[in-house]
Amino acid sequence: MTVLAIVGATGAVGSTMIEIIDARESVPWSEIRLVASARSAGKVLKVRGEDVTVRLLEPEVFDGVDIALFDVPDEVSAEWAPVAASRGAVAVDNSGAFRMDPEVPLVVPEVNADEAANRPKGIIANPNCTTLSMMAAMGALHREFGLTALVVSSYQAASGAGQGGIDRLQAELSAVAGKDLGSRSGDVAEALADLPDESPFPAPLALNVVPWAGSLKDGGWSSEELKVRNESRKILGIPDLKVSATCVRVPVVTTHSLAVHATFSREVTVEAAHKVLGAQPTIVLRDDPAAGEWPTPADAVGGDPTVVGRIRQALDFPDTLELFVCGDNLRKGAALNTYEIAETVAATL
Amino acid sequence: MTVLAIVGATGAVGSTMIEIIDARESVPWSEIRLVASARSAGKVLKVRGEDVTVRLLEPEVFDGVDIALFDVPDEVSAEWAPVAASRGAVAVDNSGAFRMDPEVPLVVPEVNADEAANRPKGIIANPNCTTLSMMAAMGALHREFGLTALVVSSYQAASGAGQGGIDRLQAELSAVAGKDLGSRSGDVAEALADLPDESPFPAPLALNVVPWAGSLKDGGWSSEELKVRNESRKILGIPDLKVSATCVRVPVVTTHSLAVHATFSREVTVEAAHKVLGAQPTIVLRDDPAAGEWPTPADAVGGDPTVVGRIRQALDFPDTLELFVCGDNLRKGAALNTYEIAETVAATL
Repeated sequence: MTVLAIVGATGAVGSTMIEIIDARESVPWSEIRLVASARSAGKVLKVRGEDVTVRLLEPEVFDGVDIALFDVPDEVSAEWAPVAASRGAVAVDNSGAFRMDPEVPLVVPEVNADEAANRPKGIIANPNCTTLSMMAAMGALHREFGLTALVVSSYQAASGAGQGGIDRLQAELSAVAGKDLGSRSGDVAEALADLPDESPFPAPLALNVVPWAGSLKDGGWSSEELKVRNESRKILGIPDLKVSATCVRVPVVTTHSLAVHATFSREVTVEAAHKVLGAQPTIVLRDDPAAGEWPTPADAVGGDPTVVGRIRQALDFPDTLELFVCGDNLRKGAALNTYEIAETVAATL
Repeated sequence: MTVLAIVGATGAVGSTMIEIIDARESVPWSEIRLVASARSAGKVLKVRGEDVTVRLLEPEVFDGVDIALFDVPDEVSAEWAPVAASRGAVAVDNSGAFRMDPEVPLVVPEVNADEAANRPKGIIANPNCTTLSMMAAMGALHREFGLTALVVSSYQAASGAGQGGIDRLQAELSAVAGKDLGSRSGDVAEALADLPDESPFPAPLALNVVPWAGSLKDGGWSSEELKVRNESRKILGIPDLKVSATCVRVPVVTTHSLAVHATFSREVTVEAAHKVLGAQPTIVLRDDPAAGEWPTPADAVGGDPTVVGRIRQALDFPDTLELFVCGDNLRKGAALNTYEIAETVAATL
């Protein structure tokens, strides 16, 4: 009689969560409760073939809930995850509100599942989608070779900004399609002049890349870049891991890609990395350039595994690999990992 | 009475070359000769207001030519640049045929203009467009702080593959626009099924990023990635510069972007880097995230300067900066730099 609640059930990640639940052969839940803000409460969604009416987010909605998954803005999580916990639920939160709280574990089941049991606040955090995209691979390589440093550049999809990000990219693509654009400064921006001013992105995304995600932090860093650093350290349990990230939005609907320069404390070869990564159940290796095989978002999207390829031994940096990683930011990067944490917790209840 | 020839005048780079020449207040040429293969010979193009008939590429076309610019495939350059040189012209070649030849200088005028005089074969090479996009910035920073290592991830535009690359990206964008695509594996590829099989790209580029450019080399490296390493070393005159590059194609028409992690032998701060880069005539700094200012291809395209921003001091790597650089790959990355080499040489004739 385990009851699951999904808060933010009608958003981009919430919808993916329901897809994942629908696709599971069996689930440990006696009830799945969908919860959203007043704007979406009352909607009826199908979950595993049954109609479920979306309920309003209020304290009583958590009564009898064992595990409550949150995919809502930071400030909503900050307020409501403790409410769920106070009513006896384990809150698994995908916002940034609790990730760096020392009393909240930050969990990627294939890397640090044990941490899920250590939750003094009754809250477990799900990592940022950019960090998550490389964690299965980095966790496996770290166990074998001892990770010491990461230099990361991201190629982040529009859906990292939610359904609004997807809608905006598609509107922008329709506005530029069939036009001879992209070879004069500002002509893409001009072509988008008829779209609404408000965009989830701070610059045109169609025919462009935008080296900015999140808010401005000290030293010119974006919040997204610091999340990659701080969350990687916490998940991998390497407090002094050296990390530099540059986060860039690209005109892809869903699936974040990362170019990773990873340095280890022990000798590492491409063959050894292939062996380690190939043995992971949640990783698919696509690494045969001669056969046209490497990871791309268009192939990786919609799947659960992290796709890894382009593994090369750095020519000039000792004990260092270059690799390219693609992960569906709505699935492993958000809904799937959150749900896997819930399954991990449910197994112990 | 200095005569200039442009070989490959009708391609994407050749057309940009003519635009650049048209925009110059004055030119040192008494004649500008346009040259192309049989497919394009006989066409009439306007250059600085005058009709010029494109001539066939044959040995006699170089008679009387002082400087011959080549923008043609490697094998055409390999055959014809020496022919031009043997007839007395200085050949300035934008192919990969001669770049790593120790008897051929590889020139970026603001970095190593002096090298242009040292041309025992009568040939000067223009660097690869990806390398070139960061050379003005890296040259200036190296002079001041002593560059020792580069980790680079590229966001390369379709026009790096010529006019065919531009045409393909636009056809792909038209095929995906207005459709709900990009969230299921393979749905972008399906939407492109009606396009011709032959593409300059080895995977769909619309709604995608493709971590491959060039041909396969030892160790799983792409030729493009090794060019970034080897050409950076040669241009900057640092034979032991440590370089790792990951080259990725993105759905942008024109302008390559690079995320650069640069390590120096001397102490470097963001302020000092701003001062050095801000003083360069061929660099525009856009580095004020609070005001929404950072480099993007949509802004940088069509301009001569390299646009540099997102400069951050690495938090965990000593004497290291992160930066983001955008350069028009058809202009500074190809036609402009080639033409600037020609101007440098013309001034000495």
